[in-house]
Amino acid sequence: MTENFADRLLNAIEAKRAPVCVGIDPRYDRLPPEMTAGPDADEAAKAAKIAEFCWQLLQAVEPHVPAVKPQSAYFEVYGARGVETYHQVVRWAHELGLLVLGDVKRNDIGSTAEAYAAGHLAGPERPDAITVNAYLGGDGLEPFLDVCRAEGKGVFVLVRTSNPSAGQVQDFAGPDGEKLYQHVADLVASAGCGEGLVGERGYSAVGAVVGATYPDEARELRRRMPQQIFLVPGYGAQGATAADCAASFTPGGTGAIVNASRSVIYAFQQPQYAEMRWPRAVEAAAEAFARDVRDALP
Amino acid sequence: MTENFADRLLNAIEAKRAPVCVGIDPRYDRLPPEMTAGPDADEAAKAAKIAEFCWQLLQAVEPHVPAVKPQSAYFEVYGARGVETYHQVVRWAHELGLLVLGDVKRNDIGSTAEAYAAGHLAGPERPDAITVNAYLGGDGLEPFLDVCRAEGKGVFVLVRTSNPSAGQVQDFAGPDGEKLYQHVADLVASAGCGEGLVGERGYSAVGAVVGATYPDEARELRRRMPQQIFLVPGYGAQGATAADCAASFTPGGTGAIVNASRSVIYAFQQPQYAEMRWPRAVEAAAEAFARDVRDALP
Repeated sequence: MTENFADRLLNAIEAKRAPVCVGIDPRYDRLPPEMTAGPDADEAAKAAKIAEFCWQLLQAVEPHVPAVKPQSAYFEVYGARGVETYHQVVRWAHELGLLVLGDVKRNDIGSTAEAYAAGHLAGPERPDAITVNAYLGGDGLEPFLDVCRAEGKGVFVLVRTSNPSAGQVQDFAGPDGEKLYQHVADLVASAGCGEGLVGERGYSAVGAVVGATYPDEARELRRRMPQQIFLVPGYGAQGATAADCAASFTPGGTGAIVNASRSVIYAFQQPQYAEMRWPRAVEAAAEAFARDVRDALP
Repeated sequence: MTENFADRLLNAIEAKRAPVCVGIDPRYDRLPPEMTAGPDADEAAKAAKIAEFCWQLLQAVEPHVPAVKPQSAYFEVYGARGVETYHQVVRWAHELGLLVLGDVKRNDIGSTAEAYAAGHLAGPERPDAITVNAYLGGDGLEPFLDVCRAEGKGVFVLVRTSNPSAGQVQDFAGPDGEKLYQHVADLVASAGCGEGLVGERGYSAVGAVVGATYPDEARELRRRMPQQIFLVPGYGAQGATAADCAASFTPGGTGAIVNASRSVIYAFQQPQYAEMRWPRAVEAAAEAFARDVRDALP
């Protein structure tokens, strides 16, 4: 019997006592200086160095977090070689016992969405969950939900993103003042309670991306989507605090996972970690991040 | 001096007298029987056969269409090998003198959107334009627009898609009855008139995806986005006719490019083409498609 993704994620969070994940956003120009092959390295050399960085990164954060969120864009920038590295990072993370939330924000319809679901979510070598964009409506989500049901995988649908201009589209308001992101939240809640999607703990394999930079909206969305696990970007480099992130959790301190990327993976560039070797700096930052979020929980 | 993408596309359309492009959506299970390596082929063998199919496909349609639209999902399903094939198809299309509209529907913010722009749009080896999803607002578009300005590339922003449940999100209405897709259209029109984006012929490098399956909406959007070239999916397999597509053109018969995918690339599976060798069937279908759209223009 396939275990529901929400159950798997909540169990992993409890086992590590850390409702957080680390975003794997590797940029060649920000690698530890001793790791680079020089500015003139070709794409293959850069992708190889990024792979090496990611492998050490995964080992550094593994003791402290239940999941990682590799950002596909930073791998796709190196073409097919980068994509190979992305899939390698997913496999390495699995070997270390980490859950993988693939940040791919894919979106399409019909057989095209099926192809994305097959290429990015289906099968043991692919992530445990991916992010998707719902601008195309429910029939763009269905092929992903089919994989969630069949294989115990998950999706996080973009509802309220963490960026400054998110509101240009997401705050578009209806006659009763309801905003688009609330309407999308209702769609997500509705899709997520479908047959075979809700786990034993009452959460759905269909989660939502809710940015930490808008805590008032997050509090309201928490009530609107009681069965959704929130994937919460915006902590750290994007300016949100652990207290802001707490708005995405239930009163029982569950139902969300907070992501930090740059503030953890480039910790070696911060003054307080400057004395450490870089993997140790990353590990210390991951540990501090997990503690910070845990301590702020309701 | 870099030539504006809109000018390049309109010139290419006029040179072939064909305001159409062919969608490259290759599925292994639909390849001509003589081309497959059997159902048990591994991913690499399947990707190789798909590459061979695409190469012959490009040669078959090149005499009749100015552009092709490879759909990334059908390549990503084969992992890194598939992505390598996607980039190979882009290069082959360029070698044949075709413009390439990469259907990737990417979306993200800040440095992540920059990475997508670098990996999918920047440089001569990448497509001339790509599709993007604007759910994250204007700061998600800017990195793509920077590449458009610098390199004469283009984007097509999803406004009104062609699928049955498009309206679940896109028809969300404001107090004065304005719908979300109209609001997004206004954002696109506004972003598209920015400095360095409008070409000599008055069209912007920032276009819009407007599905042919909703011709009334397309007519209204035509007025709302006078400077946008519309990329129009939905013809053929999705049910829209050439007359439906005509709604996306100006009274002068310009400003749009209609896409057909399955009805052209799998033409050899249709009774009227059954007597032909498959590349000839595809060529005949591409020619018929271009004629059908041309004859329906205002």
